[in-house]
Amino acid sequence: MDFAHSAKAADYIARVGEFIRTEIDPVEPGYHRDLAALSDPWVVLPVIEELKAKARAQGLWNLFLPDETHGAGLRTVEYAPLAELMGRSAIAPEVFNCNAPDTGNMEVLHLYGSDEQQARWLAPLLRGEIRSAFCMTEPDVASSDATNMAATALVKGDEVVLNGTKWFSTGIGHPNCRVAIFMGLTDPDAPKHQQHSMVLVPLDTPGVEIGRMLPVFGRHDAPFGHGEVTFTDVRLPLDAIIAGPGRGFEIAQGRLGPGRIHHCMRLIGLAEKALDLACRRATERVAFGKPLANLGGNRERIADARIAIEQARLLVLSTAWKLDTHGLAGARSEVSQIKVVVPNMALGVLDLAIQLHGGAGMTDDFPLAAGYASARALRLADGPDEVHRGVVARIELKKHQS
Amino acid sequence: MDFAHSAKAADYIARVGEFIRTEIDPVEPGYHRDLAALSDPWVVLPVIEELKAKARAQGLWNLFLPDETHGAGLRTVEYAPLAELMGRSAIAPEVFNCNAPDTGNMEVLHLYGSDEQQARWLAPLLRGEIRSAFCMTEPDVASSDATNMAATALVKGDEVVLNGTKWFSTGIGHPNCRVAIFMGLTDPDAPKHQQHSMVLVPLDTPGVEIGRMLPVFGRHDAPFGHGEVTFTDVRLPLDAIIAGPGRGFEIAQGRLGPGRIHHCMRLIGLAEKALDLACRRATERVAFGKPLANLGGNRERIADARIAIEQARLLVLSTAWKLDTHGLAGARSEVSQIKVVVPNMALGVLDLAIQLHGGAGMTDDFPLAAGYASARALRLADGPDEVHRGVVARIELKKHQS
Amino acid sequence: MDFAHSAKAADYIARVGEFIRTEIDPVEPGYHRDLAALSDPWVVLPVIEELKAKARAQGLWNLFLPDETHGAGLRTVEYAPLAELMGRSAIAPEVFNCNAPDTGNMEVLHLYGSDEQQARWLAPLLRGEIRSAFCMTEPDVASSDATNMAATALVKGDEVVLNGTKWFSTGIGHPNCRVAIFMGLTDPDAPKHQQHSMVLVPLDTPGVEIGRMLPVFGRHDAPFGHGEVTFTDVRLPLDAIIAGPGRGFEIAQGRLGPGRIHHCMRLIGLAEKALDLACRRATERVAFGKPLANLGGNRERIADARIAIEQARLLVLSTAWKLDTHGLAGARSEVSQIKVVVPNMALGVLDLAIQLHGGAGMTDDFPLAAGYASARALRLADGPDEVHRGVVARIELKKHQS
Amino acid sequence: MDFAHSAKAADYIARVGEFIRTEIDPVEPGYHRDLAALSDPWVVLPVIEELKAKARAQGLWNLFLPDETHGAGLRTVEYAPLAELMGRSAIAPEVFNCNAPDTGNMEVLHLYGSDEQQARWLAPLLRGEIRSAFCMTEPDVASSDATNMAATALVKGDEVVLNGTKWFSTGIGHPNCRVAIFMGLTDPDAPKHQQHSMVLVPLDTPGVEIGRMLPVFGRHDAPFGHGEVTFTDVRLPLDAIIAGPGRGFEIAQGRLGPGRIHHCMRLIGLAEKALDLACRRATERVAFGKPLANLGGNRERIADARIAIEQARLLVLSTAWKLDTHGLAGARSEVSQIKVVVPNMALGVLDLAIQLHGGAGMTDDFPLAAGYASARALRLADGPDEVHRGVVARIELKKHQS
Repeated sequence: MDFAHSAKAADYIARVGEFIRTEIDPVEPGYHRDLAALSDPWVVLPVIEELKAKARAQGLWNLFLPDETHGAGLRTVEYAPLAELMGRSAIAPEVFNCNAPDTGNMEVLHLYGSDEQQARWLAPLLRGEIRSAFCMTEPDVASSDATNMAATALVKGDEVVLNGTKWFSTGIGHPNCRVAIFMGLTDPDAPKHQQHSMVLVPLDTPGVEIGRMLPVFGRHDAPFGHGEVTFTDVRLPLDAIIAGPGRGFEIAQGRLGPGRIHHCMRLIGLAEKALDLACRRATERVAFGKPLANLGGNRERIADARIAIEQARLLVLSTAWKLDTHGLAGARSEVSQIKVVVPNMALGVLDLAIQLHGGAGMTDDFPLAAGYASARALRLADGPDEVHRGVVARIELKKHQS
Repeated sequence: MDFAHSAKAADYIARVGEFIRTEIDPVEPGYHRDLAALSDPWVVLPVIEELKAKARAQGLWNLFLPDETHGAGLRTVEYAPLAELMGRSAIAPEVFNCNAPDTGNMEVLHLYGSDEQQARWLAPLLRGEIRSAFCMTEPDVASSDATNMAATALVKGDEVVLNGTKWFSTGIGHPNCRVAIFMGLTDPDAPKHQQHSMVLVPLDTPGVEIGRMLPVFGRHDAPFGHGEVTFTDVRLPLDAIIAGPGRGFEIAQGRLGPGRIHHCMRLIGLAEKALDLACRRATERVAFGKPLANLGGNRERIADARIAIEQARLLVLSTAWKLDTHGLAGARSEVSQIKVVVPNMALGVLDLAIQLHGGAGMTDDFPLAAGYASARALRLADGPDEVHRGVVARIELKKHQS
Repeated sequence: MDFAHSAKAADYIARVGEFIRTEIDPVEPGYHRDLAALSDPWVVLPVIEELKAKARAQGLWNLFLPDETHGAGLRTVEYAPLAELMGRSAIAPEVFNCNAPDTGNMEVLHLYGSDEQQARWLAPLLRGEIRSAFCMTEPDVASSDATNMAATALVKGDEVVLNGTKWFSTGIGHPNCRVAIFMGLTDPDAPKHQQHSMVLVPLDTPGVEIGRMLPVFGRHDAPFGHGEVTFTDVRLPLDAIIAGPGRGFEIAQGRLGPGRIHHCMRLIGLAEKALDLACRRATERVAFGKPLANLGGNRERIADARIAIEQARLLVLSTAWKLDTHGLAGARSEVSQIKVVVPNMALGVLDLAIQLHGGAGMTDDFPLAAGYASARALRLADGPDEVHRGVVARIELKKHQS
Repeated sequence: MDFAHSAKAADYIARVGEFIRTEIDPVEPGYHRDLAALSDPWVVLPVIEELKAKARAQGLWNLFLPDETHGAGLRTVEYAPLAELMGRSAIAPEVFNCNAPDTGNMEVLHLYGSDEQQARWLAPLLRGEIRSAFCMTEPDVASSDATNMAATALVKGDEVVLNGTKWFSTGIGHPNCRVAIFMGLTDPDAPKHQQHSMVLVPLDTPGVEIGRMLPVFGRHDAPFGHGEVTFTDVRLPLDAIIAGPGRGFEIAQGRLGPGRIHHCMRLIGLAEKALDLACRRATERVAFGKPLANLGGNRERIADARIAIEQARLLVLSTAWKLDTHGLAGARSEVSQIKVVVPNMALGVLDLAIQLHGGAGMTDDFPLAAGYASARALRLADGPDEVHRGVVARIELKKHQS
């Protein structure tokens, strides 16, 4: 066992950390203030493009992609600490072209896209010129059970025809969003995991209508947004289907492992940031003649937060290592475990930090309330806690049923 | 012991409940939609004034005020279940002229106001014509320790001069808000609880400047708002001081007991509403071939929510009864107990309801995310959990130190 | 609403409290020491009989029985605070002839027993001359589901024939134990709740064999004990059946409500005792230059313990009041609610007290470790938490299914 | 990063696991039954010596000692998984000569003992011929604060004179226990960490009196026991002091890191055993027509248990690796973190397992109740949770105070 980072990872950790400290941290509060002051916040402020250019110039770009040509050639366990660092900032993921759902979409295109699909969509995504969305969740059914999916992607002659309503399509509000990956039912009579297809849908295709942007705990997360999208008789040539009809579930599976690692590591970064702020506040603010740190159970809560973060990080890193070493099949329980643990851990740390900040913690003067909303969303997105606990339990119990 | 409501309380419970069901529930979702669609939501929509007029006509008005002339003559324990009913709706408290902070301000004016103060401010407040704010919390000190207060209310000749910055002044964004009760330090050399004064400040007094409205978990709670207010050499005649200089703490004390009962009972109503929605969703939504209620630990969580609500309600009601029977001095620990228990309980129930609603629970399609923000705020407002636990522990330990 | 005790209850509270303080508290530590020193602790020490005689002489006897002739004529809500007081001591319940399972058995005999059954068993039980057991739980099936019961009570001619193995038959090790109430399956073809019978079994009946006494968290709870009992072709006349064949469930139902109130109130007394000891220790012991109370989160935990006790007590008292007012049918959810809440609450308070006592808290120098074992047992006895949560949830969800 | 065990560790894991499965598991239930049936259980049953001989013959002996000559030459992170395996059994640690407190005492003697001390005490301990105790905790002061220690080890001429009362001296009841390491105050005027000495005390030295064996949650843990020991003018030559006067704290420090790793890993093994039993019961027992696993929240709890174990194990292993790599100075927070996390985690898993076993879980038919007592003790032994949380918080806050 060796808990030290590889030399390559350590080098990237140093460089990404330095970039965030020197380039992003100084401008981020101003970025949020400027955006909040706009009557139309669905824009990309120039500072974002400037930061992206700098990051790209320094080779801190597409770090998530294990491929050595298009990405940095990092294993999941090596990229994980970089995702953590990015999670300390709300804008860093985009700055390094490592933000969801584009990362997942790029992975899908990289692994399953045809040459033509890659040229048309992957290339500009990798350059950070366009953004993309992923249309899976539906408003009218319990999407925690994927077999509930009601939207259809029917093959009719040389076309695939899409119908249905999706929501929580993150990123679809972005001014540069050009394409969505749509998942729909193609063949209800096929074997259970060969019924669905993933289709690349240019957003300007007739029949695609982007409705309202959904508030998440009061926030619209502009300029990305979480949109409601209706697809009405949307017709596309068959080559818009990724990897061919019926392979939607197979592709979704491959996307899950690394995506959850990324989400979880970013949340760990957010939790570290929150604990950082909490400790600073606890040592600086005074009440009843003492710094807050010395009042009541605050120290115990700070200790518990530190312990929870350490445990969660180790679980995610070991899961990343298992994914790298044994593939998703060897880490199925673990991937679900981190999906349960990390968002709940992050919420606990954020809640502590908010409480120590008093009223200010609930405002946008600190990144805590916004962070809380995004961590809370991750107890539902990509499968709710309950479904993941179910996976963990099923695998656990199976050991005893022979 | 008798756990039944008095006949008088039971009658009001029936009437307030009926009013909410028939008059408020049908129009409330439209109200929120209409308000959200406005570019300037700092207005009173006509429906609110219509509902107020109806409620007043039916004698469902100023129910919080124990005084028989101005209010309904209800004891705290009799008003408590009405506050609970009002808490099921975001607009009901205002409709019945029972919303914070006006209720507390009216109580203060009723108990301590001079005839002139009552005529000028209490009368229009009781008629629901104007709104008021309470300026106590400050951004630059830990307000959990009231002795930290930095704002001043200095007596200079026949004037009192106010200086300082307050924030989280709830209601100050309301278009009808005309007056604020300002608390400030008058005499640092007086005995500890005679140093502060409460001053009635017309909002159009020179030197009063309302700054930004603070977002609370992303929400501005228009048209009430939580404002930042600066007071710069604000000069008022001495008769603007309530009950005379140095009585601020005494007045604040009297305000606390009933105010916390009201807050807590409204949160219990909110929790009941959330459990109601949770059960409905759990029976209607289907995943993996079963209603959500029959999956995993959902039933256990519903049971725990029911149990938590019952316990919290009984604690608040018994505290109300103690306040009625023994006064604040006889219920000091209890008042702090409910302030700890109820917001945390409500957050737990709301969180469960949100989880059962999936993504929809985080949006404004249900009153859950907004309710979560307001319940979370009450873990800080009126004293954070930690301060109240401290009060309870001090009283508990004192029994053993003799 | 009136949260004050009735004059009658208040009088008993004063007298029982005084008796415990002056008669029991001074001798109880010695009692436990003496018993622990015996090689055979399955005896009744003389001090117990002396205390019983005193209590009886003072009219503090059979207080649990609502009947005015045989008992004190107290309603459940009036007896509840007395059960709480008795729960502060491990021997008080027996001293006042109010210990389980004899109380439940006496209630059953009082309500359902024939004149002859009452003369033979109820009379000496009421005099405290004999003890009894209740044989329901079985080792080989999940007794949480009563329909699992495997033991049989078959009517054959003018006899009822018992077969089966029971365990956790509390009290069966007591030297004065003379009779057990046995529950068994009589008619599997009868409607679901008319299949079982309760039978009075003199312990010297041929075929009754008392096996080992079960340790509960390492304790045998001598001289009462929790025994394993086998019934092999035990033959009794038909009039040994209480209320006739097939009425077992009906009788068990009636026994449940008050029994759970008693258990829960005793646990609340135990929790109060533990909090008492915790506060004393926290103020007396010094570490790092401060009394433990002033270290870390100890005050917060003490506050939480106080709050938890208050809430639990109010829930039990209101449940008692509902039982008195509306019967079991009107308090079914509440009876299950208290069964979930109270043992878990007591365990939390006991755990805190143990922790504050350090190593000593785990020994028998304080009643904490023994109390912990008995509170833990009550998360299983009389239905595990999970079954009671299920009852609460079912009733809650039913409100939304029409 | 590499989460795989070294080849050497993997080999030992296989061999120790096999030994436990084939040699210990089959005889352990009988061992406990036989011991419980004895009127004097303070003996070593022959099966223990037989197992020790077998283990030693297979080279599975003194595995805890990093020294290659006396031990197996395993790093802490390599021994850790072996300690976990041993924790699955109550007797395995002794069988492999790896039981506390002998391990810690042997480490102390190995690192700090003089040649003579090693010959006299370390050699027979390494051969498993004698047992030893560690006398540190005292009944009359809060031992969580080591500076409270009241016992004295005064140097008088060429003797050291011991006085004081110790308790929770584990192992002192063992028939083979020959020596205790006593810690006492030597020089109150020396710098804070040079005031105490550790002294080797043959148990037959005049003035040493072993008092009662303390029950821990009702158990005496024979034949090891937790004893109360008084030292009255116990006189020993100066060479009984380990490493010379005043070095007690220094030695204690070195003992702490690995000792806590061992304790924690054994508890993880205990938790794994409990989860194992819980899953087996959950799949085999049926209630309400379903295996328990399919009722209520049982699956979620099983999932949470699995997740908690994984996280705790990773934290301990990474702490072990830090100890190996950076020494105690580089793992101070981590050593305290595991001491908080692991016992609480184990208690949670054990509680779940007990609940799933119903009444049987509280008896000694399963190792659950006994395991619960020992895990609970570890929330106090070697420093209570609260002290360790304090260490973690102090280190965390120090990062922000410069």
